[in-house]
Amino acid sequence: MSRPGEFDLIARIRARVSQRKDVILGIGDDAALLKVPAGKLLAVATDTLNSGVHFPVDTAPADIGWKALAVNLSDLAAMGAQPAWCTLSLSLPDSDACWLDGFLDGFLELAKHHDVALVGGDTTRGPLSIGVTVHGFVDPEENLRRNAAKVGDGIWVTGTLGDAAAALVQWKSGHHIDPFLRQRLDRPTPRIEAGLALVGVAHAVIDISDGLLADLGHVCAASAVGAEVDLDAIPSSITLTSMFDAGQRRYLMAGGGDDYELCFTAPPDARLAIAATAERCDVAMTRIGVIVEGERVRAVLEDRSEWTSQHVGYDHFG
Amino acid sequence: MSRPGEFDLIARIRARVSQRKDVILGIGDDAALLKVPAGKLLAVATDTLNSGVHFPVDTAPADIGWKALAVNLSDLAAMGAQPAWCTLSLSLPDSDACWLDGFLDGFLELAKHHDVALVGGDTTRGPLSIGVTVHGFVDPEENLRRNAAKVGDGIWVTGTLGDAAAALVQWKSGHHIDPFLRQRLDRPTPRIEAGLALVGVAHAVIDISDGLLADLGHVCAASAVGAEVDLDAIPSSITLTSMFDAGQRRYLMAGGGDDYELCFTAPPDARLAIAATAERCDVAMTRIGVIVEGERVRAVLEDRSEWTSQHVGYDHFG
Repeated sequence: MSRPGEFDLIARIRARVSQRKDVILGIGDDAALLKVPAGKLLAVATDTLNSGVHFPVDTAPADIGWKALAVNLSDLAAMGAQPAWCTLSLSLPDSDACWLDGFLDGFLELAKHHDVALVGGDTTRGPLSIGVTVHGFVDPEENLRRNAAKVGDGIWVTGTLGDAAAALVQWKSGHHIDPFLRQRLDRPTPRIEAGLALVGVAHAVIDISDGLLADLGHVCAASAVGAEVDLDAIPSSITLTSMFDAGQRRYLMAGGGDDYELCFTAPPDARLAIAATAERCDVAMTRIGVIVEGERVRAVLEDRSEWTSQHVGYDHFG
Repeated sequence: MSRPGEFDLIARIRARVSQRKDVILGIGDDAALLKVPAGKLLAVATDTLNSGVHFPVDTAPADIGWKALAVNLSDLAAMGAQPAWCTLSLSLPDSDACWLDGFLDGFLELAKHHDVALVGGDTTRGPLSIGVTVHGFVDPEENLRRNAAKVGDGIWVTGTLGDAAAALVQWKSGHHIDPFLRQRLDRPTPRIEAGLALVGVAHAVIDISDGLLADLGHVCAASAVGAEVDLDAIPSSITLTSMFDAGQRRYLMAGGGDDYELCFTAPPDARLAIAATAERCDVAMTRIGVIVEGERVRAVLEDRSEWTSQHVGYDHFG
């Protein structure tokens, strides 16, 4: 069987992308031409996934495709942005149409769900690496930034934490990986609807990619505040609870990355609005702490003793 | 000496980027927030460079930085777009502040020249790879597309061709690389001013990255026309002419990629306007052929005999 060339691969991608009215010119020219709605700001985020670094080397192509777009959409969710377009840079060790088709299955499934049009990109030969840039829209007056946390705000998270890190622990140990945990690692859910619904309700928002305490640290640094997190209040999935003891869970939930849930702060009087938002978006929103004066992120246990783990999330060069 | 972490690298980048008024929120949040001018379309292009594929492994960090942005700006030039912003995804084998500083020297020198603001990106550990996405603006009514070539149009190129491919030939042979040719390979000039000036003058435009005949082939396919190129009319630099014989030059100029000059088509009555544009932009614009009916790109010699080289440019998986 002959290997498809670069332009065959691009044609294969182009044949499957969906359209949007605001894509004036999509794949096939030197650049895409796009129409941003009047009165909106453009939100742009970019994230690259490298094989063996951002996903286990045995990850299915469709899951890699899903995750490459999901982690980028998660950044838009954390800005309260409505997704619109993306570009895709694929580095492939060789030209493998079968791998590409699988990759596109996952990538385009998620794109379709959020009405995101793939408008351009490039394919090159190299170690497996996927670079995605996403574009969305926000209101100039109302959007969600890291620097907006205020003393007295509650600290909240969506969904459950620690599942993705638990799957990685199982994968690294060579044991059986629980299918639910593996799904959470391979197919994170970008909280787009929750991000949009939190505009006007939340103060600061960030998505949890490096680990709760590390990412909350970014919020605190940007907002010049401190945080106190009740470790025993962090929500965990039934699977995580059944498979890991309390000490392991704390470590996974507070330090593990790759969950792509949202962490946000909101004033005390927003409780009812948050409850309504959670119900409407069909995702749990749990209060796990409070923004305080200072600059430290303190993690405390139920008995108010302080957690002393030095683990503060993932640094690619740490 | 301790190695800087991921966030130190990002801080190092952030400290050096320049600002623009339309960057509402730059590096440091989950996404950048940007303001597209009213009435303009957004032009988006993305290109990734992998070490050893898109540049020789011994390329200086500053030259890699320059080239990573230049090849992307070249895509905007080919759309007649005014550059505005870019994002940068850096995969580095290890955290090397010295390499990064050199890379930024070249990248930001070119960014400053074209008033391009670096607004976001990510750094990850992996084989050396640089992904850039550029954003610019075009007029909705007047922009330069590949599908606009018309029968009877002249075919034109900016600058000289073959220099970058010649440098690669010298590099691969292990011989001394002529400094001028090496400069043309390492520091291509994105023809932004020429692209902007050609709006309203040229019909179809493409930048030459895969090789003249291959890229002209893309224009012909998109426009449903053929082309006849006079190989002996293609402009070559004094250095290329002095170091390579006519047969070698034809091969390098017609088939060699990486020049990042513009190839465009324009109606016969545009000759004077093109001459004026060339003078204003301080770059040669040379007529090298004509758009004809059909779908083939024919390359002919001065005596009207047909060139039969099968070389049609660079395909990453060819």
